[in-house]
Amino acid sequence: MGKKIERIAVLTSGGDAPGMNACIRSVVRTGIYHGAQMFGVMQGYQGLINDEIIPLNSKSVSNIVQRGGTILKTARCLEFKTPEGRKKAYDNLVKHEIDGLVVIGGDGSFTGAEILSREYDIKVIGVPGTIDNDLFGTDFTIGFDTANNTVIEAIDKIRDTAASHDRLFFVEVMGRDAGYIALWSAIGGGAEAVLIPEKETSVDDLVDKLMVDLGNLKTSSIVVVAEGEHGGGAMAIAEKVKERFNYDTKVSILGHFQRGGSPTSFDRVLASRLGQAAVEALLKGHNRKMAGMISNHVALTSIDLAIKNKTEMDETLIELVNILAI
Amino acid sequence: MGKKIERIAVLTSGGDAPGMNACIRSVVRTGIYHGAQMFGVMQGYQGLINDEIIPLNSKSVSNIVQRGGTILKTARCLEFKTPEGRKKAYDNLVKHEIDGLVVIGGDGSFTGAEILSREYDIKVIGVPGTIDNDLFGTDFTIGFDTANNTVIEAIDKIRDTAASHDRLFFVEVMGRDAGYIALWSAIGGGAEAVLIPEKETSVDDLVDKLMVDLGNLKTSSIVVVAEGEHGGGAMAIAEKVKERFNYDTKVSILGHFQRGGSPTSFDRVLASRLGQAAVEALLKGHNRKMAGMISNHVALTSIDLAIKNKTEMDETLIELVNILAI
Amino acid sequence: MGKKIERIAVLTSGGDAPGMNACIRSVVRTGIYHGAQMFGVMQGYQGLINDEIIPLNSKSVSNIVQRGGTILKTARCLEFKTPEGRKKAYDNLVKHEIDGLVVIGGDGSFTGAEILSREYDIKVIGVPGTIDNDLFGTDFTIGFDTANNTVIEAIDKIRDTAASHDRLFFVEVMGRDAGYIALWSAIGGGAEAVLIPEKETSVDDLVDKLMVDLGNLKTSSIVVVAEGEHGGGAMAIAEKVKERFNYDTKVSILGHFQRGGSPTSFDRVLASRLGQAAVEALLKGHNRKMAGMISNHVALTSIDLAIKNKTEMDETLIELVNILAI
Amino acid sequence: MGKKIERIAVLTSGGDAPGMNACIRSVVRTGIYHGAQMFGVMQGYQGLINDEIIPLNSKSVSNIVQRGGTILKTARCLEFKTPEGRKKAYDNLVKHEIDGLVVIGGDGSFTGAEILSREYDIKVIGVPGTIDNDLFGTDFTIGFDTANNTVIEAIDKIRDTAASHDRLFFVEVMGRDAGYIALWSAIGGGAEAVLIPEKETSVDDLVDKLMVDLGNLKTSSIVVVAEGEHGGGAMAIAEKVKERFNYDTKVSILGHFQRGGSPTSFDRVLASRLGQAAVEALLKGHNRKMAGMISNHVALTSIDLAIKNKTEMDETLIELVNILAI
Repeated sequence: MGKKIERIAVLTSGGDAPGMNACIRSVVRTGIYHGAQMFGVMQGYQGLINDEIIPLNSKSVSNIVQRGGTILKTARCLEFKTPEGRKKAYDNLVKHEIDGLVVIGGDGSFTGAEILSREYDIKVIGVPGTIDNDLFGTDFTIGFDTANNTVIEAIDKIRDTAASHDRLFFVEVMGRDAGYIALWSAIGGGAEAVLIPEKETSVDDLVDKLMVDLGNLKTSSIVVVAEGEHGGGAMAIAEKVKERFNYDTKVSILGHFQRGGSPTSFDRVLASRLGQAAVEALLKGHNRKMAGMISNHVALTSIDLAIKNKTEMDETLIELVNILAI
Repeated sequence: MGKKIERIAVLTSGGDAPGMNACIRSVVRTGIYHGAQMFGVMQGYQGLINDEIIPLNSKSVSNIVQRGGTILKTARCLEFKTPEGRKKAYDNLVKHEIDGLVVIGGDGSFTGAEILSREYDIKVIGVPGTIDNDLFGTDFTIGFDTANNTVIEAIDKIRDTAASHDRLFFVEVMGRDAGYIALWSAIGGGAEAVLIPEKETSVDDLVDKLMVDLGNLKTSSIVVVAEGEHGGGAMAIAEKVKERFNYDTKVSILGHFQRGGSPTSFDRVLASRLGQAAVEALLKGHNRKMAGMISNHVALTSIDLAIKNKTEMDETLIELVNILAI
Repeated sequence: MGKKIERIAVLTSGGDAPGMNACIRSVVRTGIYHGAQMFGVMQGYQGLINDEIIPLNSKSVSNIVQRGGTILKTARCLEFKTPEGRKKAYDNLVKHEIDGLVVIGGDGSFTGAEILSREYDIKVIGVPGTIDNDLFGTDFTIGFDTANNTVIEAIDKIRDTAASHDRLFFVEVMGRDAGYIALWSAIGGGAEAVLIPEKETSVDDLVDKLMVDLGNLKTSSIVVVAEGEHGGGAMAIAEKVKERFNYDTKVSILGHFQRGGSPTSFDRVLASRLGQAAVEALLKGHNRKMAGMISNHVALTSIDLAIKNKTEMDETLIELVNILAI
Repeated sequence: MGKKIERIAVLTSGGDAPGMNACIRSVVRTGIYHGAQMFGVMQGYQGLINDEIIPLNSKSVSNIVQRGGTILKTARCLEFKTPEGRKKAYDNLVKHEIDGLVVIGGDGSFTGAEILSREYDIKVIGVPGTIDNDLFGTDFTIGFDTANNTVIEAIDKIRDTAASHDRLFFVEVMGRDAGYIALWSAIGGGAEAVLIPEKETSVDDLVDKLMVDLGNLKTSSIVVVAEGEHGGGAMAIAEKVKERFNYDTKVSILGHFQRGGSPTSFDRVLASRLGQAAVEALLKGHNRKMAGMISNHVALTSIDLAIKNKTEMDETLIELVNILAI
């Protein structure tokens, strides 16, 4: 196991996700509770390279559990992908005598942590913080639940106006490679259909389905479209549908507010539990693990497994959208 | 005054606005309370022409005070702009022996009501139902407050992610001819600048302002853009700004969900009070009036005044955005 | 397996929980999708006894996924605990030729279903619908997530006023026998302490903890108290604390609004998936099972196990509250 | 007019109200915009006496427009009611060379400001910050709108569970002397009846009304009760009603979370506009005025008028509750 971890740093990396602050707070207080010295790294890996590393105490993280975004900020960092960049990062960690690092982010962020830890004498634990819910080794990632709620609140509102005007709406939600937000919000929002990156859907099939709805006197319809869907996004799909379909059609691209907002209960608790687990894993000598939640209990998974394995898209969810839309 | 009004119909017309249902409920129950027979017209003026007129009782409008949209639906209706269309509409009103009509909508809807009432023996009262808040004769229109809250909730979320990434965001809000939503949400959302249809802003001035912010170490900025602003909307403005400004810039077009959602307290109470006022105005013999709210009291204004007069954009609000952005 | 199930009824029983409507909708549409005839029973078991059984089609359950409460209503029913009551209930099921019953509720409701199914030739599947999250065989029950969010929104608001006045607040939340809502909302709400039925806490220890906070210059504190906690509830605890502690102390008993509200994304999706699973279990010949969610996948558990086994209170959650309150 | 005001302090006093932070931010930035030096007083008048006066710059008030509570904190202060207390307060103002004071609070706070300004050479402007909406000279006070929305959200949730169980609910809302929150939330929440301090209602009349509802097959009812109502509050009224009425009756006392929460759009804009107006009034030489909003425009009223005059309870609102409950 080597020597006891005594000085721990935490950073957030990649796209921000609601609940990251709750996780930072939990990491910091769990560390202090167990006697460690705690540090925060600003701007993700960029801050490691630039030596933006600041000591954090209990008060530093007070009153943030309910805040969206990340007080440590986040950034994409190309330099960290180079050996020179990682060397600078490690030198700064050594300078501050930091021996453990908690990385809150997605698979890109985990890859960086994995490499750093293999190259140098620094222990890393990852915490899955991304709204996309696309990481193996955890039932849910931090931010997914809040994003889903943001989306269904928007869909509930769109349904009001869709129903008042007898309109067909295409609602584009986040998800470049993963259709989880689209699928969950289609089920939760009562959508008539969903288009996701994991599955090709022909426009003809979609129009057929919408025409059946029209025959059944449904007077409004909502189709949820993940941005990474194969047809080119909501705008492109709507154009194609309009060619075959004489119906008042509108497009709504929800955009960046899906990333923000006060985290939900679920994300706050998930983030707090995983933050605790990450620090306690470091203190127990673990390295290159991701702290995830499986069946409502904390579980550690090797980071390389979390990155390499793909979570399978649950086909029953796609079927459920079809069932609920009858 | 002529004979007493005994049978009253209500319709919603133009774009839907949150609070229309609360207003319908109040119209119906106030009519019943005073002994009138109440009717609802589906699909706005189109339903008048197509004879989609249904009797409403107290239960018809139960449990809708909190719902967005309009249970009577709404539609744009070109046919009503023709004498033939209005003739059909009047014939249907006669058929149902309806002698009073409450029209919930914006200035286009009021114009139709005004003409119908001048051509035929039917009394009309308008209620201002539009998110745009652009009608003379009332401090606020039904739906404006809910739309503002929807917008600032989105801006609050966007600020989380903007601050986490040090980004500049252009947020486009509804308002083709009127900048009220943009102005109010800029103040309420803490935006750095606002662009509205009522006032031209040069891109150069905007960039200068944003550069001053940057000098002041503001690390994120939000600019609210009304869709009818002269520079061509948020996308066009963002493109122009990017040419002069090396900063991570994003655009978010909020779109149709601004029209939906459970109405706020303010809109529910406003809608309920104006619905009561409209029916009581009809019963007292008024015609071609709009029921508005001035200084928290109901006031009647001639519909032609409400249409012809423009509410002046309050210059102090524009100045206030600048003050608050220092 | 016996003959194929062809006519299925659904009822909600016990305390209402947000998401019950989403579950009813999914039960009905899944049944129709697979060719079954669907029925709803009003008022829980009372409606079975009184023959308040109505046919449901796809439209019967449209536009309810987002609504709190239950359109089928619910009631406690003493008569169903008697053999005579259950005889009447079964006779009514026979009269309508219903061969499968989906019961959405908590352990009391499941016990009734279990007995009925053992006494008579009727297949039953339970779906866990209760805000208390106290059922074995599922990670989460329908309504728990919405209740947690309702509670933390209230706590977030209370913290605003507590911090403005330097006050100590005792917030009483639902949970007669189970402390899950208290624990989760203490973590999510950033509370300084939590009192739950599963664990006795001495008032002296609590006061000691609060005094340490005061020494640390925390200027406001929130203690979450489950209603079934051993000290007699928030009022009683607050009285005892005040005797030893000179601090402005307030009590807030959140009460029944914890049961209502539009269900969250999590509860809508959970309810929809479990509703589908319950009907498909019936159609596959299962009997006396509960459809639950384990590690984000549907799982069937014998109802008698779900009732008899207790979910263990996770001690790490209690420790986490203490860690986060430092 | 005397010399130009150059150094301005702001304090919040009395009960906290959502929007106070938005007002502080506007006061500070408006002052800076016009070249003044700005100060904040902690803990209301207590901080004036204790010399808790701190300089504020633009960054001091960044990112607070959306926060509930008050960053300056608030407290009741008996000492300020004595000449000795006010002497100390004035001495501290002199020490910091402060010549203008903005007081955000209710009528008690204004009385203190009025007396201080008459006794000593200090100019004061009041801003109406109280959820009670009981001040003459403004259509709305800061915080009233947010409190109303908090209450109707709770009532919407209570209605879900009330309707699912066929129950009668008494919901107690804030308002010791003023029934505005009760009245507005009764209209907005669709309540069956309302009890307010300004009007005595006999329990017999209330029961008669509820029995008519029962005859009309309304299966759930909500009665809103202001805490200062003459019958002794919701608990006492519910007890009396139960004696005459065989119905499942519940009481919900909403409590302190009515004071908190992120301010609504309306309160943020109102607070921002009044904060600007208060500072500009000081700079123009005004003294002992309250900045209020009348018909959506800023208006100044003498503080003594604002305190002495009572806003009349609008009888049409009481009638409207009765109309809407049919």
